[in-house]
Amino acid sequence: MRKLILLAAALPSLAAAQPVADRAAALRDAALQDDHVAWDLLEGLTTEVGQRLAGTDAEARARDWAVRRLTALGFSNVHVEPFDMPVWVRGEEHAEIVSPFPQRLVLTALGNSGATPPQGIEAEIVAFDSVAALEAAPDAAVRGRIVFIDHHMMPTQDGSGYGQFGAPRRQGPTVASRKGAVAIVVRSIGTDHHRNPHTGVQTFGAGAHPIPAAALTVPDAEQLQRILARGQPVRMHLTLTPRNTGTHQSGNVIADVPGTDPSAGMIVIGGHLDSWDLGTGAIDDGAGVAITAAAAHRIMQAGRPRRTIRVVLFGAEEPGGLGGASLYARHHPGDNVVMVGESDFGADRIWRVDPGLAPANAALADRIAALLAPLGIVRGREPADAGTDLGPWVRGGVAAVDLNQDGTRYFDYHHTPDDTLDKVDPAQLRQNVAAWTAVLAAAADAPEAIAGVEPRPAR
Amino acid sequence: MRKLILLAAALPSLAAAQPVADRAAALRDAALQDDHVAWDLLEGLTTEVGQRLAGTDAEARARDWAVRRLTALGFSNVHVEPFDMPVWVRGEEHAEIVSPFPQRLVLTALGNSGATPPQGIEAEIVAFDSVAALEAAPDAAVRGRIVFIDHHMMPTQDGSGYGQFGAPRRQGPTVASRKGAVAIVVRSIGTDHHRNPHTGVQTFGAGAHPIPAAALTVPDAEQLQRILARGQPVRMHLTLTPRNTGTHQSGNVIADVPGTDPSAGMIVIGGHLDSWDLGTGAIDDGAGVAITAAAAHRIMQAGRPRRTIRVVLFGAEEPGGLGGASLYARHHPGDNVVMVGESDFGADRIWRVDPGLAPANAALADRIAALLAPLGIVRGREPADAGTDLGPWVRGGVAAVDLNQDGTRYFDYHHTPDDTLDKVDPAQLRQNVAAWTAVLAAAADAPEAIAGVEPRPAR
Repeated sequence: MRKLILLAAALPSLAAAQPVADRAAALRDAALQDDHVAWDLLEGLTTEVGQRLAGTDAEARARDWAVRRLTALGFSNVHVEPFDMPVWVRGEEHAEIVSPFPQRLVLTALGNSGATPPQGIEAEIVAFDSVAALEAAPDAAVRGRIVFIDHHMMPTQDGSGYGQFGAPRRQGPTVASRKGAVAIVVRSIGTDHHRNPHTGVQTFGAGAHPIPAAALTVPDAEQLQRILARGQPVRMHLTLTPRNTGTHQSGNVIADVPGTDPSAGMIVIGGHLDSWDLGTGAIDDGAGVAITAAAAHRIMQAGRPRRTIRVVLFGAEEPGGLGGASLYARHHPGDNVVMVGESDFGADRIWRVDPGLAPANAALADRIAALLAPLGIVRGREPADAGTDLGPWVRGGVAAVDLNQDGTRYFDYHHTPDDTLDKVDPAQLRQNVAAWTAVLAAAADAPEAIAGVEPRPAR
Repeated sequence: MRKLILLAAALPSLAAAQPVADRAAALRDAALQDDHVAWDLLEGLTTEVGQRLAGTDAEARARDWAVRRLTALGFSNVHVEPFDMPVWVRGEEHAEIVSPFPQRLVLTALGNSGATPPQGIEAEIVAFDSVAALEAAPDAAVRGRIVFIDHHMMPTQDGSGYGQFGAPRRQGPTVASRKGAVAIVVRSIGTDHHRNPHTGVQTFGAGAHPIPAAALTVPDAEQLQRILARGQPVRMHLTLTPRNTGTHQSGNVIADVPGTDPSAGMIVIGGHLDSWDLGTGAIDDGAGVAITAAAAHRIMQAGRPRRTIRVVLFGAEEPGGLGGASLYARHHPGDNVVMVGESDFGADRIWRVDPGLAPANAALADRIAALLAPLGIVRGREPADAGTDLGPWVRGGVAAVDLNQDGTRYFDYHHTPDDTLDKVDPAQLRQNVAAWTAVLAAAADAPEAIAGVEPRPAR
């Protein structure tokens, strides 16, 4: 009898949820079938703007482009929230083995790299196969030399190799500088075998002055290893002339799909508008911009949702999540954000969902997982953490849904000149839009309240 | 009764051929199992010399390297046959769309390209999708502009797309120059989607003065097509500063496996030692150097063959077969060369043999095909023509055996910075050595005479 009463009490919300789920399934299938908004946005951004390094004129053109396009698509409240940032730009970059086997190597400066004099520097290479090995070396073995750090990253579906094997890029320059190295070159944090280097940000820590820091392509790093294996001293000539251009403006582009019930809270999704300067930022992160905007647009076209959906195209993610920090500082806790979701891992098919909802929302998490299963998406067991841009909200106690793209080939192209439109498969892009559309449809119209989650510290 | 007599007449050579074939099969299988000479040569050449542009110091270092290595391997008569050549070297290369969507494009100068002034040139793009379309255009539509020519090359196993779709690179610059274009950019003659351009030789014909000529990467050519598709005038800024450095020395490296019977004639095989300057020339043509030298070395190790086997590592193939022409001019018809074979199509597995022997040698052709079948090699029906370096001998009436590598991915890397050691699969390299070893063993010890073939004009 108690059971029956409990069942009866649960019935109203189940009854209200079913039509929402049916509608979400229909929207999902329509997106999978014929979405072209994401491709049009992605093709437009990469063609009409191209690379858009944070804080530069190119990024400003991207904001103008985004405001025009999102306005034309019918979004409300389309505007830019600007912020200032220090800007670093690439210069000349050349490296040459001087002896014993003279030949050029291909590399690119890492973000915030120091510069050599215009004519370059020449020094002997000292090689390590991890940051730990560099740290363990006596300073005398490093001082006055060019440090080379290798690593052993392999492709993984969930992209987890990036965190673990990215240390040479992230910590290597600081450690090398502290030990008196005149420069550092690392094996690109990538999984391909092409002569395209992978750039990426690094920040010199306390006690480290900026030294020239660059990534060799994977084939060039392997070539250097073969040369070193001959056992003779290896001397490199290195020219890197990046520079800091001072403080410039970046900004986040905001676009809303207004909801009918302000008290139900807002859902914030997005990707980042800036890219590295080498490619056209198709997978990183034109795709995220296109996918989240297209999914929100499909919800808007289907009629007004209960909750407002805010799409944020973040500025200056690559230098360290400056746009994400700016959004959080401005809007938390003022805005009643109840759920966030970020797309910043390319456009290969979504293979896993990690619903990061509160225990009180277990039924909503189940409905979301059920809506995604027909797209071949498995339910994961990892904590949802959004990403660089929306992670602050999760750590601050806001629910999130993580949709994980297949990362097997993501680090073949990531941060290289090869991050271009041809790397995106339109059918997989539609699957992404379908998945995000399903999540948004289920969450924006969820009849129950969406609860906060346990705040947690940054990893 | 006539039949029996004929059979009896054939028996002696059959009887002599069978032990040769058995020995060839054993040598083939040993090479497939454990050859390391080819890898050692290829790894050594690409690591210790790297790129080796024809006529430069790097190519001279490659000759010194080859003489040392071939001598150490026990070859006889190791020496260089020098010749002079005009040398062209690459300079700066930058391209930028100025309007309507400012962005850099990645390209590289084609061989013998003219130069822009150091500060570059700026002009409007006029686009064509074939050389024929450019030829058909009125000169007024081309004059003062930068021509862009696209093409539609796709991968083929036999590499036949290269001849057909290479016209924009080979003829485009001449036609554009004659029509008054200020420069030409072509879609790289390649089948990949990486930001690595494919260089290659072109020669300005009569009535064409040198203009800057370059290849855009495939992704950049597609980007330019998308920009052009917007229908607005597209202006490009182009800087290319290659230069001719005058006459320098190149040379062919010769190494012999002496035979026991000079009257039986000589077999000449080889690949080319020079490479383009962008990669380390692993597939083009370090592989051919390594494969043919390793196969000849296996024959040498097994005992003295009947016919001398000469390995030639050609200089200056890339600028137009200068080493091949030099060899033919010096040694034809003085040397009694009865068969030639060239490896210049990478190191992926050999999938087809085209035995280009005289009708009188049908039995030898059958024996060679039978020896190759266990390696998965099919017998083809194309005329054998060796290649750029040894083709003159075939056209002059010398028999040849063509062993065709699988070319499906060859034009992903050909003439790009990506032509590096990691593109070579050691197991497939061994299959190549095994196939060449079988052919050499069968032909060098063939008991019958190896006849000449019908001379034919150049294609």
